[in-house]
Amino acid sequence: MQKLKKQSMEFFQTRTDLAIESREILQGSQDSEDIQGVKVSVEKIEDLELEITKVEILDNQGAEAMNKAIGNYITIESPLLTDNDMDDHEEFIKIIARELMALEALKNKNLVLVVGLGNWDVTPDALGPKVISGLLVTRHLIEFMPDQIDESVRAVSAISPGVLGITGIETGEIIQGIVEKIKPDVVIAIDALAARKASRLNTTIQISDTGVHPGSGVGNKRMGLTEETLGVPVLAVGVPTVIDAATLVNDTMDQFLDAMRTQSEKSGPFYEMLQNVNKEEKYQLIRELLDPYVGNLFVTPKDIDATIDRLADMVAESLNLALHPGLDTKDIGRYIQ
Amino acid sequence: MQKLKKQSMEFFQTRTDLAIESREILQGSQDSEDIQGVKVSVEKIEDLELEITKVEILDNQGAEAMNKAIGNYITIESPLLTDNDMDDHEEFIKIIARELMALEALKNKNLVLVVGLGNWDVTPDALGPKVISGLLVTRHLIEFMPDQIDESVRAVSAISPGVLGITGIETGEIIQGIVEKIKPDVVIAIDALAARKASRLNTTIQISDTGVHPGSGVGNKRMGLTEETLGVPVLAVGVPTVIDAATLVNDTMDQFLDAMRTQSEKSGPFYEMLQNVNKEEKYQLIRELLDPYVGNLFVTPKDIDATIDRLADMVAESLNLALHPGLDTKDIGRYIQ
Amino acid sequence: MQKLKKQSMEFFQTRTDLAIESREILQGSQDSEDIQGVKVSVEKIEDLELEITKVEILDNQGAEAMNKAIGNYITIESPLLTDNDMDDHEEFIKIIARELMALEALKNKNLVLVVGLGNWDVTPDALGPKVISGLLVTRHLIEFMPDQIDESVRAVSAISPGVLGITGIETGEIIQGIVEKIKPDVVIAIDALAARKASRLNTTIQISDTGVHPGSGVGNKRMGLTEETLGVPVLAVGVPTVIDAATLVNDTMDQFLDAMRTQSEKSGPFYEMLQNVNKEEKYQLIRELLDPYVGNLFVTPKDIDATIDRLADMVAESLNLALHPGLDTKDIGRYIQ
Amino acid sequence: MQKLKKQSMEFFQTRTDLAIESREILQGSQDSEDIQGVKVSVEKIEDLELEITKVEILDNQGAEAMNKAIGNYITIESPLLTDNDMDDHEEFIKIIARELMALEALKNKNLVLVVGLGNWDVTPDALGPKVISGLLVTRHLIEFMPDQIDESVRAVSAISPGVLGITGIETGEIIQGIVEKIKPDVVIAIDALAARKASRLNTTIQISDTGVHPGSGVGNKRMGLTEETLGVPVLAVGVPTVIDAATLVNDTMDQFLDAMRTQSEKSGPFYEMLQNVNKEEKYQLIRELLDPYVGNLFVTPKDIDATIDRLADMVAESLNLALHPGLDTKDIGRYIQ
Repeated sequence: MQKLKKQSMEFFQTRTDLAIESREILQGSQDSEDIQGVKVSVEKIEDLELEITKVEILDNQGAEAMNKAIGNYITIESPLLTDNDMDDHEEFIKIIARELMALEALKNKNLVLVVGLGNWDVTPDALGPKVISGLLVTRHLIEFMPDQIDESVRAVSAISPGVLGITGIETGEIIQGIVEKIKPDVVIAIDALAARKASRLNTTIQISDTGVHPGSGVGNKRMGLTEETLGVPVLAVGVPTVIDAATLVNDTMDQFLDAMRTQSEKSGPFYEMLQNVNKEEKYQLIRELLDPYVGNLFVTPKDIDATIDRLADMVAESLNLALHPGLDTKDIGRYIQ
Repeated sequence: MQKLKKQSMEFFQTRTDLAIESREILQGSQDSEDIQGVKVSVEKIEDLELEITKVEILDNQGAEAMNKAIGNYITIESPLLTDNDMDDHEEFIKIIARELMALEALKNKNLVLVVGLGNWDVTPDALGPKVISGLLVTRHLIEFMPDQIDESVRAVSAISPGVLGITGIETGEIIQGIVEKIKPDVVIAIDALAARKASRLNTTIQISDTGVHPGSGVGNKRMGLTEETLGVPVLAVGVPTVIDAATLVNDTMDQFLDAMRTQSEKSGPFYEMLQNVNKEEKYQLIRELLDPYVGNLFVTPKDIDATIDRLADMVAESLNLALHPGLDTKDIGRYIQ
Repeated sequence: MQKLKKQSMEFFQTRTDLAIESREILQGSQDSEDIQGVKVSVEKIEDLELEITKVEILDNQGAEAMNKAIGNYITIESPLLTDNDMDDHEEFIKIIARELMALEALKNKNLVLVVGLGNWDVTPDALGPKVISGLLVTRHLIEFMPDQIDESVRAVSAISPGVLGITGIETGEIIQGIVEKIKPDVVIAIDALAARKASRLNTTIQISDTGVHPGSGVGNKRMGLTEETLGVPVLAVGVPTVIDAATLVNDTMDQFLDAMRTQSEKSGPFYEMLQNVNKEEKYQLIRELLDPYVGNLFVTPKDIDATIDRLADMVAESLNLALHPGLDTKDIGRYIQ
Repeated sequence: MQKLKKQSMEFFQTRTDLAIESREILQGSQDSEDIQGVKVSVEKIEDLELEITKVEILDNQGAEAMNKAIGNYITIESPLLTDNDMDDHEEFIKIIARELMALEALKNKNLVLVVGLGNWDVTPDALGPKVISGLLVTRHLIEFMPDQIDESVRAVSAISPGVLGITGIETGEIIQGIVEKIKPDVVIAIDALAARKASRLNTTIQISDTGVHPGSGVGNKRMGLTEETLGVPVLAVGVPTVIDAATLVNDTMDQFLDAMRTQSEKSGPFYEMLQNVNKEEKYQLIRELLDPYVGNLFVTPKDIDATIDRLADMVAESLNLALHPGLDTKDIGRYIQ
């Protein structure tokens, strides 16, 4: 009986969910910046200490190299994203909204379903549900009182389905059921992600048009939310809020040993052996050392409770702007209670 | 634009959701205890100051008289339900579980879907979502590791779909979509209810096998969750947590005027006029006087935040016992994290 | 034993805490707008549907007439205060800050202690604690790293002491202890208030320089926070978030009977008797009719959970601006995590 | 300006707060179990997989060796503490209460002040404030209605003062102020602690009669809560809920390298160099590698939100039993709303 719990604990995430980190890992093992089948562009906004990286995976070769699906990955990064500055936040909201609106998958779509993935009872996994609470949801207003709704208002619906451990149902199944019922033109999934680097926590927003794939996000999933499973295009908006503890130990240890090696200029059989350890075996050993919470410990900043609230606000307002471009913030404030 | 908000505020509940109160209202206007087509039995448990009233509506005549659907309504009442006493709570849990297990609709059902209705962002409406958080959900365990699960564990799944104002989708549509996908044998809906009497707040649990009907619960619904709409039997478990403000004013005023009349032995044209006011008009006038929050003010006890947590625990544990009769509380504790 | 609980429940508020409502009640029984010893001025800002009423109680005569202490009472009212509009909110914040900064009691004060009254476990009473969470608190920074702090930053400290039922200590005693220890130049108390009129709920902010008096606020207090008890000037900032249920029934019934009287043009002995009921007796009878939650039921809008968060943000940001006039919102955002 | 924030982030904890871990660290570098000036006894309760370790530091020699103050340290450990099992919890509550009642410092004390340390806005640091919410607080009842209170009820008061970053006041100063005002006979401080080992998270309760020392707890403190600073005996009850990220990396890396060494039987200059790195320097380098959240990342189990609630309940109920031994749980439930 007790084994069960442990096994269900393994539903946890050890890789990176960020395309930008996949690329960095890859480049670490290559000489050149160019990866075949991948197109990259970078935009900087100095005032906001902001960098927007657009990674386009063009074909199967690029997909294999990056271990990500073909499509667009937009990463918006700024250390100021975690700051509590209302003026900066308004700028970030406009930039995120602009990037969303530029996506082909969102154009000329009448009915949108926003899905807030994650568990509202686990602070760093509650991004999705909290975004849903801040959305300007309009499908029911348009349906029940169409003459009172401006035509600039798009039909938006939303759901926070909860996680497998709480529902006993794959999130993918729940969303399939709802999609078949209300037939949206596009799905937007919001999720808390796992990063590899501490510096990315809560300072990065990733937008992609490739959906959510099995095994990504803070909680593990077995069924993805993609155009194949749902029959409509799926956008994903994610923010890395945790690092898996074993990944953090693994990476920091590597950096530490590198630093030691450089500093001391010493090596020898022990160092060579360490260099040759199989990556997967090394990771597994670290996980075992972290027992009994195998795979279930996460690393997060101390201020995560307040930060999640701010990030959820920002993502929700970006979506409101992008989905209802005809409304200004004043109008949106009036609709949302 | 602004009119919208007010209209969406009207989604609020003014009647009683309790069969026991329907019966009291009815009896107030009748000489006899007997209502045709309705069978009533009462059980008392002195120690717990508990009264269990079973109302069975047998036919259309009874249904019309009671303004409730044909079926069983079990009301468990005790002022001690709001007390913070662990020993009493264990007794209440066993009694609620016993009543649930006695229902025909729950017998020999393999897959159960529990639906937590209500809005987790509105304290007295958060009963349903909070019950879902405390449930022993097993459908995924049985599916993914059947050999490790005892056969005494029934397949239980659960969902808190949110409310229309947050999702833009009728709760009924969401549940239909999920029911069509996972095909449960029975649905159990949990909801916070509106009462008429302050003494019933948080001291009453109502169980029925007739589902949830449009317009009941703390938030209004247009589509019910019933065997007709979902294709499977629907049980409902509800706890009254609020009184609509206009209803409270209306009822307390009536009692006040009665008391004044009796005490003073005075009457006259003004009193007679009051007696003859149309009930609906009177209620509407009170609502207007309570403007600008028409229909949107509720009355609730000061300790509602703590009380909702305790009641949700109690209902969740009752369901765990009733749905997995082969497990003891120790086993259940191990499964639920 | 059980009696205890009931008695402790009586710690609840039945009057109005708003000077503006005291004045309205008074004017209802007078012919003229002028009350001796009371000076009133009104300012309107059309765009924000805002009205600022300044009531100055000049002497004992005014104090007796108003049943309030000598001093200044500033009421800022707008139905838009409950709206979720970021642009309006910035305007409100500036106006509230301006009114605070104009108060004599805040000028040239070096060390400020902000006290967040109320119970964080009771949604409509959590205004004070939530304001404290959003404050730019600086006393420790100035003390521990004075050279790194701009001199435009005033030394601000803050405390949410909890309520008598949770601490077993009068809030006044706790604050006295802290005041004697850290010796602030001025205390600012933040509190959720009780209103009489539904239209004032969450749409009114009252600022006064007379402190907090026993028996005001959503929870009752026996010891006030005033210059007499603390030895330093005490400002109070309050927002009405609830109406006592008995008060609501009482007032709505009066309006209803008036409306009936006018409409029907009927009167007679019953009406006259009603007119002559002693006010206190009438109120007591209504309370008894609302038993068993005597004095413990409150009336609040359905959206109180979200509204309290917004109002607390607004009050906290107003205080930040008023207490650190040299900092702009960007600076403040950087300090507050 | 921005430097400030980073500096205030350093208020974070890197050592272990557990006497039992100090002893383990010490024993790692010694041959024998015996440490001069330290007395240790162990009790096991098989059913509950429970181990109670009592460490008595007798004199300065022991204090220096352990780097802890002279006094008693009781550690109650069981992996079942994190389980959600009501029956086990009742057993744990009785055991914790028994250990508290056996402490000399609690005997014949009339007025108790319980202090809930920590930040209610940071999940794993909210243990103290949550315990306060569940306490049976009686000082005000005894003061205001002495004839209605059983003499078995001790006068208990409580406060959650918040943390330095929120109040701008050292917690020690706040508590001094309150202690001088209400003059308790003993103070009991509740705090979330930092552990070194993942297996101790949420599975260990430490009770000591030596107070809380500067720099312990999840948040850092500069002033302790001890008999010297407060003038009355101070008990401390703590539960480790986090591991500092740099500590976890440090310890896991050491274990990993040891395992590699043993397995591969390889060594050489690099290994020797690693062995000889100064411990403090090594720790500092790891902290720098974890930049930019220096010292501000913590490691905690995924289920911390639910676990903190359960542990706080358990500690609160243990205190209720220990402080009011004449009351049974039924009575306590009636008093606490």
